[in-house]
Amino acid sequence: MSQPSSAAAGTSTEKSWQARISEATDAIAQAFVESVSYDWRLYKQDVAGSVAHAHMLAACGLLTEDERTTITAGLREIEREIDASQAAWPGFKPEYEDIHMCVEAELIRRVGEPGRKLHTGRSRNDQVATDLMLWTIDATRELGTLYENVLKAFVAMADRSADVVMPSYTHLQRAQPIVAGAEVLAWAEALARGLERLVRSAERYEFPLGAGAIAGSSLPLDRKQTLWSAKRMGILPGDTNPLAASSIDATATRDTAVEFVFGLAMIAQTLGRWAEQWIIYMTTEFGFIKIADRYTTSSSMMPQKRNPDMLELIRGRTANVYGDLFALMTLLKGIPIGYNRDLQEDKRLLFRAYDTVTQCLTMAAAIVGSASFDKARIEPTLDRGFLDATSLAEYLVTKAVPFRTAHHIVGTLVATCEKAGKHALGQLTVDEFNAVLADHNVPARLTDDVYKALGAANVTERYQTIGAAGGKPFRDQLAGWKRRLGM
Amino acid sequence: MSQPSSAAAGTSTEKSWQARISEATDAIAQAFVESVSYDWRLYKQDVAGSVAHAHMLAACGLLTEDERTTITAGLREIEREIDASQAAWPGFKPEYEDIHMCVEAELIRRVGEPGRKLHTGRSRNDQVATDLMLWTIDATRELGTLYENVLKAFVAMADRSADVVMPSYTHLQRAQPIVAGAEVLAWAEALARGLERLVRSAERYEFPLGAGAIAGSSLPLDRKQTLWSAKRMGILPGDTNPLAASSIDATATRDTAVEFVFGLAMIAQTLGRWAEQWIIYMTTEFGFIKIADRYTTSSSMMPQKRNPDMLELIRGRTANVYGDLFALMTLLKGIPIGYNRDLQEDKRLLFRAYDTVTQCLTMAAAIVGSASFDKARIEPTLDRGFLDATSLAEYLVTKAVPFRTAHHIVGTLVATCEKAGKHALGQLTVDEFNAVLADHNVPARLTDDVYKALGAANVTERYQTIGAAGGKPFRDQLAGWKRRLGM
Amino acid sequence: MSQPSSAAAGTSTEKSWQARISEATDAIAQAFVESVSYDWRLYKQDVAGSVAHAHMLAACGLLTEDERTTITAGLREIEREIDASQAAWPGFKPEYEDIHMCVEAELIRRVGEPGRKLHTGRSRNDQVATDLMLWTIDATRELGTLYENVLKAFVAMADRSADVVMPSYTHLQRAQPIVAGAEVLAWAEALARGLERLVRSAERYEFPLGAGAIAGSSLPLDRKQTLWSAKRMGILPGDTNPLAASSIDATATRDTAVEFVFGLAMIAQTLGRWAEQWIIYMTTEFGFIKIADRYTTSSSMMPQKRNPDMLELIRGRTANVYGDLFALMTLLKGIPIGYNRDLQEDKRLLFRAYDTVTQCLTMAAAIVGSASFDKARIEPTLDRGFLDATSLAEYLVTKAVPFRTAHHIVGTLVATCEKAGKHALGQLTVDEFNAVLADHNVPARLTDDVYKALGAANVTERYQTIGAAGGKPFRDQLAGWKRRLGM
Amino acid sequence: MSQPSSAAAGTSTEKSWQARISEATDAIAQAFVESVSYDWRLYKQDVAGSVAHAHMLAACGLLTEDERTTITAGLREIEREIDASQAAWPGFKPEYEDIHMCVEAELIRRVGEPGRKLHTGRSRNDQVATDLMLWTIDATRELGTLYENVLKAFVAMADRSADVVMPSYTHLQRAQPIVAGAEVLAWAEALARGLERLVRSAERYEFPLGAGAIAGSSLPLDRKQTLWSAKRMGILPGDTNPLAASSIDATATRDTAVEFVFGLAMIAQTLGRWAEQWIIYMTTEFGFIKIADRYTTSSSMMPQKRNPDMLELIRGRTANVYGDLFALMTLLKGIPIGYNRDLQEDKRLLFRAYDTVTQCLTMAAAIVGSASFDKARIEPTLDRGFLDATSLAEYLVTKAVPFRTAHHIVGTLVATCEKAGKHALGQLTVDEFNAVLADHNVPARLTDDVYKALGAANVTERYQTIGAAGGKPFRDQLAGWKRRLGM
Repeated sequence: MSQPSSAAAGTSTEKSWQARISEATDAIAQAFVESVSYDWRLYKQDVAGSVAHAHMLAACGLLTEDERTTITAGLREIEREIDASQAAWPGFKPEYEDIHMCVEAELIRRVGEPGRKLHTGRSRNDQVATDLMLWTIDATRELGTLYENVLKAFVAMADRSADVVMPSYTHLQRAQPIVAGAEVLAWAEALARGLERLVRSAERYEFPLGAGAIAGSSLPLDRKQTLWSAKRMGILPGDTNPLAASSIDATATRDTAVEFVFGLAMIAQTLGRWAEQWIIYMTTEFGFIKIADRYTTSSSMMPQKRNPDMLELIRGRTANVYGDLFALMTLLKGIPIGYNRDLQEDKRLLFRAYDTVTQCLTMAAAIVGSASFDKARIEPTLDRGFLDATSLAEYLVTKAVPFRTAHHIVGTLVATCEKAGKHALGQLTVDEFNAVLADHNVPARLTDDVYKALGAANVTERYQTIGAAGGKPFRDQLAGWKRRLGM
Repeated sequence: MSQPSSAAAGTSTEKSWQARISEATDAIAQAFVESVSYDWRLYKQDVAGSVAHAHMLAACGLLTEDERTTITAGLREIEREIDASQAAWPGFKPEYEDIHMCVEAELIRRVGEPGRKLHTGRSRNDQVATDLMLWTIDATRELGTLYENVLKAFVAMADRSADVVMPSYTHLQRAQPIVAGAEVLAWAEALARGLERLVRSAERYEFPLGAGAIAGSSLPLDRKQTLWSAKRMGILPGDTNPLAASSIDATATRDTAVEFVFGLAMIAQTLGRWAEQWIIYMTTEFGFIKIADRYTTSSSMMPQKRNPDMLELIRGRTANVYGDLFALMTLLKGIPIGYNRDLQEDKRLLFRAYDTVTQCLTMAAAIVGSASFDKARIEPTLDRGFLDATSLAEYLVTKAVPFRTAHHIVGTLVATCEKAGKHALGQLTVDEFNAVLADHNVPARLTDDVYKALGAANVTERYQTIGAAGGKPFRDQLAGWKRRLGM
Repeated sequence: MSQPSSAAAGTSTEKSWQARISEATDAIAQAFVESVSYDWRLYKQDVAGSVAHAHMLAACGLLTEDERTTITAGLREIEREIDASQAAWPGFKPEYEDIHMCVEAELIRRVGEPGRKLHTGRSRNDQVATDLMLWTIDATRELGTLYENVLKAFVAMADRSADVVMPSYTHLQRAQPIVAGAEVLAWAEALARGLERLVRSAERYEFPLGAGAIAGSSLPLDRKQTLWSAKRMGILPGDTNPLAASSIDATATRDTAVEFVFGLAMIAQTLGRWAEQWIIYMTTEFGFIKIADRYTTSSSMMPQKRNPDMLELIRGRTANVYGDLFALMTLLKGIPIGYNRDLQEDKRLLFRAYDTVTQCLTMAAAIVGSASFDKARIEPTLDRGFLDATSLAEYLVTKAVPFRTAHHIVGTLVATCEKAGKHALGQLTVDEFNAVLADHNVPARLTDDVYKALGAANVTERYQTIGAAGGKPFRDQLAGWKRRLGM
Repeated sequence: MSQPSSAAAGTSTEKSWQARISEATDAIAQAFVESVSYDWRLYKQDVAGSVAHAHMLAACGLLTEDERTTITAGLREIEREIDASQAAWPGFKPEYEDIHMCVEAELIRRVGEPGRKLHTGRSRNDQVATDLMLWTIDATRELGTLYENVLKAFVAMADRSADVVMPSYTHLQRAQPIVAGAEVLAWAEALARGLERLVRSAERYEFPLGAGAIAGSSLPLDRKQTLWSAKRMGILPGDTNPLAASSIDATATRDTAVEFVFGLAMIAQTLGRWAEQWIIYMTTEFGFIKIADRYTTSSSMMPQKRNPDMLELIRGRTANVYGDLFALMTLLKGIPIGYNRDLQEDKRLLFRAYDTVTQCLTMAAAIVGSASFDKARIEPTLDRGFLDATSLAEYLVTKAVPFRTAHHIVGTLVATCEKAGKHALGQLTVDEFNAVLADHNVPARLTDDVYKALGAANVTERYQTIGAAGGKPFRDQLAGWKRRLGM
């Protein structure tokens, strides 16, 4: 093909700006297409995938056992070197564009002829899909390790907040009293669900190696053998991952990447909501939570100021991960089947989302580890807001009052308090209670026993249902978490 | 609380616009907060959740068996009426705001006192979370039914396209030859994965009923009993769904809704990519696919024009579902724990996404059912693009040529063709093949047998690896699909 | 073209599900493609655009003056009927698919032959682009009217809050003291900028009528004449809108729609931030703001509870508008040039975003109109947080202390307070101030005059810079707003 | 405040993981909050803003003229050093966190006391808002320079494609014939609009300097003076930028950043659509466009393959910019007023979006500069698709046939062609034309003259309306563009 650009140059004016563009773009063009500056992070997975592939080639007679040994040793050597040098490994050359070519070229340079056989029955299209899948599996495992610390931090805080009674909030308005630790465990639950989603997702990833460029191969390759090797090597989560059933789909889809980033975005969402909650709790007006000074920024002028910058950044970075997810999904919107170069961007987005979330999780663990509820600030306010109203209604239910009727009676009692200038239901007398019951044509009558159902501390201890935010259900949750985490 | 708005009215000018606002907003305010106009669609789930709840209350002695029977009968009667009247059911009153209050109010109107006991130990917060979860489970089942038709349409088309050889595309450039049916099955795979994601997700939803407003209950309720009832009633996918472990988390999270809409967005993505592919295939220039006239718009002026409007709309509506997903995720960004009214919007987004996807799936099934590859148009073009180049390289591998060397040899052979004015590798003589092999210092020599590895039809038949896009692997895939779908 | 679907029917099993699909889809297909159910809202713009077009056709001799008069009268009659019947107008027939065909068909039915000439030199592609542009212009005008109320509500509240001193917040931590009204005006500024963005955008929309289907026309049409007519009719903002310069671009772009929805999303963002702020201010712990009961939901059980549901919904609906914007942008991602049917969805998204934002604005005006700061709650807390620290530093600057040094001195003074158990800088003696100055080797010495720079009320009155949140700058802002709104 | 973290350490097990967290987080924490690693790019704007601020301080008597000169000289020296060293400048120290503190600290180190006065009446909150605004203005100017090349590349290509007739497409189906250059100009129009949007936006940015931390200042500062200085220094677009009118709004808003990224996203959208179009045009099946080999990836095996990787990456990166926009908007969703640390992320997103778009624009200019239409491939296909049907209808309009009737007649003529095995309207005889006219009861009769309205080349030349895609209107557009760009 002749160079249309020469034909394009009509006038001398055109030439000059065209020339300027060309000069400017030569370097940019290479930077524009290369991916090794970020996809080098796939090197362990690239090596592992190649080792499994070589094993299969040997099993199918396309490599001798000696060739396989040579290739595997060469790859492992390269892996060790990159382990040591990371991005600075001299084999990462932009002109090879991506991690796959860098590793293969270096392998051939080192081991010669056998290296030229490694790519048999394989294409960069199934190779990158494989590497990416293996990377997300490893990343999910690393998240699991990180999570241990994160969850322990939350559970330890719940443990040391087991005797703090505080208001819970709906609509950011005071609702019912709870043990402070129960709210901490709520975040642990939500976060843990985020990890489990990723783990379950990883167990179903479909193994694409062997799909080739798009159509599979005319060689007698045994993809089951590759899958078996990968499982034996421990680079798949277990026995659940199936082979990708269509070579066309296997090279075109990025479901693995999207599921992974979605899972990260859900974790980010939980972290962001937690951060928002604590930012509110750290205001002068609430004053519920204290965290270590090193996770706030202070000011030499206003030393009382404890700006919760870390929490704000965690809240803000939720948005970054959302952006990465949306970018990835938009990337895939409406592109044709088969590999398209657009797909190269998936790694940039995925790595970024992963880095953001792991950093936020690490900071969250540290912040929570340093945090405590300010019991002395919280408890004096517990008589605001008739937090025991629901408890009283439920108490009435145990006296055979239908719930909707009980609900109405308590409403009347609260109004009675307000009229009488009493700020808590516990200030009413037994007679006052019974008068209202009588007004509602309810046969039940109360005794002193009713006061056991009133007051935030009493109420919190009375919760009975699984998962409730106080009493035995809370202690059961906490014990379960400690058992689960070996604390 | 006094009305600050009256204090606000300073000058007569202010009064008039303030008055105008008030007039304008009374109706708008009600419309602004009510949700029954769309959440009425939860009625079956609302009834089912209440039936399970009543069963538990009876088991715990908070309802008599008679009361439970009365309540259940009343609820089922209401359900049947709504089945018949749908949105027009007279019990749907905006002043009750939502489906839950409409049903409960009507129940009390009908059965009296026992109806007032139904809400015992329950809040709208756990109720709506339960209804939403049950709705997504039912919706997932309905998708399963719809999918049967969709997948059958794709598989039937694959079946009737089993003898069409066509180019596959990467980068939208001709790559290797495939059986046309294999590409059709690739879409089926991707779509099926979309359904399976939703099904697996539904199996892990955490059952929130019993979490109350936020803190659980002080009554001796047995949430395990409710869960057991729900499973026995068949409204949960199976035995896998756990109880939500934290009442606070259970009422604050919308993970169920987000996972569901994410699953829908992934299906929409696949549909959109398929639509894009076929829009390209339906151009005058490709001419690969024909679909029934009724799924195109024609023009009386340009009768040859077959605008693929339905496909374009399917492609476009991918965006709508993405928008719904991101609206839902943004909705949740940074909101505090506990129920917040923002969450009410989740249903609007979720229903919309579901409706869009089911309509697109229905249309897709119909379009595919009417579609065929234009074999007469496709096959004459198969000699363009050296589609058999990879096959030849793999053939050389079977003659002990290392793959990277084979790759290079084939490159030279293609250049040889171009120089000689030959447009296909099959036009080279055995001597020409062997000359190039000799040039590359490769010991192997070819015979007439090489021509079996050349030509699109030959190549397509030679594929051997699981999932490959032709030959036995394709026939195995097709047979597997037909077995799976009972075709 | 023969019906491939008949060829598709292989086995009887296939037939049955294929038949089922067909039955199911006939109605769905029509619903799938029609747009008149929502684009009927363009009727006034469709008529106006046609009137301008007819005027041009007459000016160019393609219509007689009589024909033009007949057409215009017919169109205006149709417009009046739709004004009265709205969506129920009998001319809206799904089989005509869209508003344009419904109006043209009805016109021809009424006026006969001249009606058949109206579409001369015009296509639905430029017609819908024109209608959409005119609609956004009208919508922007309606927003302007609505905004008058919204801004007046904010300014009136600022006016009645001119004597309330409150803390301002950065990082949600107490920062400097401000006049409460200044924060109210900040929202007004941000909102007003949102409207101005839309207005300026509308002034640059490029008029597409005359671009035809994609290529323009071979008839001697004068697009300048059409533009002139449109301007004379007052359906364009002024004299600024240019003709779209490329017929291809004019029919392919949706920049107008995206700019409009982006503008709406920015308004939604401001509303959502305002709502969040007030939700926080309405907590028991802050207690800064009261709004009318009718904009909260109360509970008969916890009558003190004022759930700010309206504000939460405004905050939540930010997300819906974001979703509409991103759906629209995703819709456009990667679609080819020229009209594609995907574009039809733009109106659905645009109308929805507009409706959401106008409803939220209406509610915001009403809520603000009813709101007041709770001076009695706020002022006693003003001595918390050394709000006057910055003021003191600036006071020192006026005594020739470099700002960074002053900053450090104040830090020391605050520490002095804390050590001495004093909670405010104003509790320090002049000697204590001067001792610290001396320690910092600063020549300046203070007198009693320093107390004028301390205390929230004093500080607030001292602000001098344009736009500052108290003192004369605040009064100037308020006066400016009142002048601007004729209050 | 005591360190709650010590209280947190209960058991030895807890200690160990808590200790592990602390170790891990010390480095991460600093990395988590610092921004200088990316916001150093603001250095020129930071210096310029400070110079303007110092000028105002001097004018207001808060700096002596000597102090101002010293400060300005120090800042300019620092600027020159960073010009040379860029990110490697030794003054960029993570412990100072951001660009503002790095520059100020270095200034004080160099010039001493006067440097301590620079921050008078200023906060990092208004400073960063100012820097960001100035940066987007500079970035918009750089885009303008880059755009010159981009637009010239498109216009030069339009110029050298002025004699290529090709089909236009709607719904990706052949519509009317056009001059190929007209489609190229359509992209230029859409791109140019993208730049103009940014330019107009920049002209309205509100200048925030002087807003302080949130409340303004009690010092006698003159913000008008600062604005005037900034305008005189040429760092604002012109005379249009107003002062930000509310100090609270000025420090809380990120409208400037969002408008800028939105403008970038719109450019990315256009680039992505253009890339998609050309990817389709570069298929074997279309074969319309050739670009230089260096902008494709070839394959040694399939040398005919020209994968349009650069175009695919441009298409894909649309998604990245969308993601950045969505991240930025989500970041702002629901955050309280005043500066929040979340806002720090804006720069990361904005820089990234800018870099992506400028790289894509640079590549686009280079690709277009090398591209040409393959006239030899395109023109033989022009008789497919009755591209002249609309032209014929318009020709009939000039013979007094109403357009809708003409439309119907042409439909009948096309059907006549198809029945007679003729593939083009030009193959019909005059008698055949007139027979159909007679059948439609139309008085007009045609002569040989009709053939001038038929055939793609004839039709293209006949376009008359402003902006049309051929004939004089195209030549006028082209001439206008060349004039505008000085070509």
